[in-house]
Amino acid sequence: MVSGSSLTSTSTPSTSLLKDELDIVIPTIRNLDFLEMWRPFFQPYHLIIVQDGDPSKMIRVPDGFDYELYNRNDINRILGPKAACISFKDSACRCFGYMISKKKYIFTIDDDCFVAKDPSGKEINALEQHIKNLLSPSTPFFFNTLYDPYREGADFVRGYPFSLREGAQTAVSHGLWLNIPDYDAPTQLVKPLERNTRYVDAVLTVPMRTLFPMCGMNLAFNRELIGPAMYFGLMGDGQPIGRYDDMWAGWCMKVICDHLGLGVKTGLPYIWHSKASNPFVNLKKEYKGIYWQEELIPFFQTAVLPKECRTVQTCYLELSKLVKAKLGKVDDYFNKLADAMVTWIEAWDELNPSGNPGSTAAVKPNGAAKGK
Amino acid sequence: MVSGSSLTSTSTPSTSLLKDELDIVIPTIRNLDFLEMWRPFFQPYHLIIVQDGDPSKMIRVPDGFDYELYNRNDINRILGPKAACISFKDSACRCFGYMISKKKYIFTIDDDCFVAKDPSGKEINALEQHIKNLLSPSTPFFFNTLYDPYREGADFVRGYPFSLREGAQTAVSHGLWLNIPDYDAPTQLVKPLERNTRYVDAVLTVPMRTLFPMCGMNLAFNRELIGPAMYFGLMGDGQPIGRYDDMWAGWCMKVICDHLGLGVKTGLPYIWHSKASNPFVNLKKEYKGIYWQEELIPFFQTAVLPKECRTVQTCYLELSKLVKAKLGKVDDYFNKLADAMVTWIEAWDELNPSGNPGSTAAVKPNGAAKGK
Repeated sequence: MVSGSSLTSTSTPSTSLLKDELDIVIPTIRNLDFLEMWRPFFQPYHLIIVQDGDPSKMIRVPDGFDYELYNRNDINRILGPKAACISFKDSACRCFGYMISKKKYIFTIDDDCFVAKDPSGKEINALEQHIKNLLSPSTPFFFNTLYDPYREGADFVRGYPFSLREGAQTAVSHGLWLNIPDYDAPTQLVKPLERNTRYVDAVLTVPMRTLFPMCGMNLAFNRELIGPAMYFGLMGDGQPIGRYDDMWAGWCMKVICDHLGLGVKTGLPYIWHSKASNPFVNLKKEYKGIYWQEELIPFFQTAVLPKECRTVQTCYLELSKLVKAKLGKVDDYFNKLADAMVTWIEAWDELNPSGNPGSTAAVKPNGAAKGK
Repeated sequence: MVSGSSLTSTSTPSTSLLKDELDIVIPTIRNLDFLEMWRPFFQPYHLIIVQDGDPSKMIRVPDGFDYELYNRNDINRILGPKAACISFKDSACRCFGYMISKKKYIFTIDDDCFVAKDPSGKEINALEQHIKNLLSPSTPFFFNTLYDPYREGADFVRGYPFSLREGAQTAVSHGLWLNIPDYDAPTQLVKPLERNTRYVDAVLTVPMRTLFPMCGMNLAFNRELIGPAMYFGLMGDGQPIGRYDDMWAGWCMKVICDHLGLGVKTGLPYIWHSKASNPFVNLKKEYKGIYWQEELIPFFQTAVLPKECRTVQTCYLELSKLVKAKLGKVDDYFNKLADAMVTWIEAWDELNPSGNPGSTAAVKPNGAAKGK
């Protein structure tokens, strides 16, 4: 790991929600200048930076942030042979940060995402909104037409069963993007100039048994509730596919949340996504995924987990078996992926030995860089 | 029926969408002065006014509107003994208007709903937005995180299967309310001052297998696709329950849309709901419903229609059998309701004999009043 510095004084607002219970996970290959814009919101929190690509490259982290940084050498050293389940040269590597964290909550953000403004011109504290989303219940069992009923000024509407108004624990908060929308390569190619300018002032629960495309750009989750399901798969270097890491995690996660009765929200907060990635490069990464997803969606829509599975880990291992049994014939890649899913859980349990994701890990990063 | 007049000249904008294919259905017990505010938007369209309560009372309709008005005597005369399926002294009577219409589309609105303004201060043409919703597809099979992908400036996001991007035909467009939210009596009592001030700039599809509380205040649908499922049940006079008419229709309709692969949208347009109804009166109407709905929701969530049912009518008759079989034991009311559901379909087919809801009816209202 590389080491950060703490030259500037940090003024930690006492109002920073969950300051000691949340890690911000950032996958990157470049200097993290984007953090300057986030300083007022992120500085009180601990960062876990997962450096992708060449481990000899020095990543500069702006002064004053409290961070630890892991490069590929660190991942290999900490996980040993199990490091094979962590993708290389793909932002899927971020899930190593979820595993190494000891906090209850994770917020992950891409380094090309900046602070967005709401329609009144006020800068949006995305992290604060995610935390609000995670700390209030979800409503996966019945749709509320006035959106999040727990929000100030809103409630459950007439006809909403009273027995369902307690809702469910929220496991995931999926935020959105102004400016560059999260389009696939074909849509990028067809609509190169399209920008998302519509600020939709809503948070809503993705209903039970409904799948959605989870984007990893601006995402928060309760690691204690759902962490082991947030595996971003095998992507990038040596793999036939890219840009499906977050999608894969989202589909696995949603099936498990539905099984365990946990909630998933989408909507606010927005971040400002600054730069479209190259659609030609993306097409190369995506094309197998575009084809495979036609098989994946029916698979996840019909996946049934055994009633006995009451932990995320047992659910996830069961899902890996289904992947092998049903998707192995689509492509041998899915056999490898199913094995990696098992490895991921083994590594997770090794780093989080008590079964309590908030507990101290067995393996401490010794060379890993720490900032501040 | 009562007769309206046409004293003022009507300037029909040539841009009025579906002018000859849509009826506006309004249940009322009072003079329709509220139409003055809607004149720029509604005047080009035909109105079907369903007069509830005392049929001897004269309802005044502002000049220049093209309408027909049916009171209880008309309904009894036209439907004969089958008129028993149409509620009295409850806005559920509006569904008679759906049945007597010969148009492809219906928009229904309450007479305490006024034109709302969007955040820029512009008056919202609710009808136009409903028509846009109905004429563009829905996405019930998979959730799009940027909401309606067919709207200008939006699209399907990365990870949305291409095979599902054609969407489904839209059967229903459910609009929302600024100012007085559609709360049940207990919530009204607890939060008498709560007003809905949040304009959420989104239209979204209620996903497959997800139930929602459909409010009849500001609602449009494709009568050809789903009309016979829009029965508002037995409410009001002589019935143990009120204020569940639209809810009942919404749950029946959604189960049938899911079975037939049709889409249901909610969100825009907003209307301005001017006045909260009396919560004490509402509580009296609702209290059995509040209790019963705890049984109704699991019933509708698990209701399965036979594959052979490929028309709305056959689906609806099948649903009536399930109601009798499963809900009859909750209360004898549901046996009566199940019978009324059958009567409703018989009456519908009598008024729409070719099986084509757009065709000329066998029974023409002879005494019914016509305006303009």
